[in-house]
Amino acid sequence: MKKMTEQHLINAFGGESQAHMRYLHFANQAEKEKFTNVARLFRAISHAEYVHAGDHYRALKHLNGGFVANSMGAFGPGDTLKNLQLAIDGETFEIEEMYPVYIEVAKFQGEKLAQRSFEWSYATEKLHKQLFEKAFDAVNAGKDVKLGPVQICEVCGYTLEGEAPDRCPVCGAVKEKFTAFE
Amino acid sequence: MKKMTEQHLINAFGGESQAHMRYLHFANQAEKEKFTNVARLFRAISHAEYVHAGDHYRALKHLNGGFVANSMGAFGPGDTLKNLQLAIDGETFEIEEMYPVYIEVAKFQGEKLAQRSFEWSYATEKLHKQLFEKAFDAVNAGKDVKLGPVQICEVCGYTLEGEAPDRCPVCGAVKEKFTAFE
Ligand code: FEO
Ligand code: FEO
Repeated sequence: MKKMTEQHLINAFGGESQAHMRYLHFANQAEKEKFTNVARLFRAISHAEYVHAGDHYRALKHLNGGFVANSMGAFGPGDTLKNLQLAIDGETFEIEEMYPVYIEVAKFQGEKLAQRSFEWSYATEKLHKQLFEKAFDAVNAGKDVKLGPVQICEVCGYTLEGEAPDRCPVCGAVKEKFTAFE
Repeated sequence: MKKMTEQHLINAFGGESQAHMRYLHFANQAEKEKFTNVARLFRAISHAEYVHAGDHYRALKHLNGGFVANSMGAFGPGDTLKNLQLAIDGETFEIEEMYPVYIEVAKFQGEKLAQRSFEWSYATEKLHKQLFEKAFDAVNAGKDVKLGPVQICEVCGYTLEGEAPDRCPVCGAVKEKFTAFE
């Protein structure tokens, strides 16, 4: 497809993904302030942005049949084996380049809160990569992956397979801060 | 805060928001292929990316106490009144500049599927803006907004308050394709 339009689809996917994310966090804030209907409105429109992002993403797939990369990771959805490879590629970029650079610059500039936020993410991306690699191997053999409960720390995003630990090894949050996907 | 680190937080928020979104769509694809555990893994890690994005977003708030804008919309979360203004600003940019330009270029380049995807989003952003303005007025008066069910078309993201129509006025999808937030 034409490169300018392709770039616009990538930009629009990025814009809609970020609107979706902002509205989810705005919904949490509205709930804290007891604006229940405003929270519901943010969640509903966040879902509309999820649909918009998906439409743009599928248009990228349909038109280029393949793979476009930008600095944020890889584009062009496909079947699950390909999607797992895209996920592994994206995590690898974050582990090998993006977060190490962001952490280094935050240290250099003395921005401690930003440094912590980058370090929390960085600490988890390696586990994401490993889990996706395990899934890739299973799907590549034509099978679903064997997978216990997956625990996510609601404070720092730390991810592990199995039981939640007493304390998050990355941020120190208590066990109750973990959400299980099982 | 230092501008380079601030830009890295914005970039990381964008990257994590897009990873979150890709993994949600990858989960849907894995379900279609009956890889149930792979779908669950994508959903769990998508949730971890939601936590990462939120951490970076809050770091932006904490450090600049305010407002950073980039081409994708406005940054810097606050209380719900401020968040509604940020939402209105973001939707306004999409309505007044972003989607009209993307639609024009897609037409000019003869990219019909991309044009349709942009037109579907554009058709709905005006309604998003109106709903956020209504919520802004209520919260500005210290009240929650009065709000009926909010219906979202799963095909094009069309959004309305009230009952789902027999056919989506934007994409023609049947009533059953609407999801209600009530
Ligand atoms: Fe696994 O990217 Fe935060
Ligand atoms: Fe798809 O921005 Fe309301």
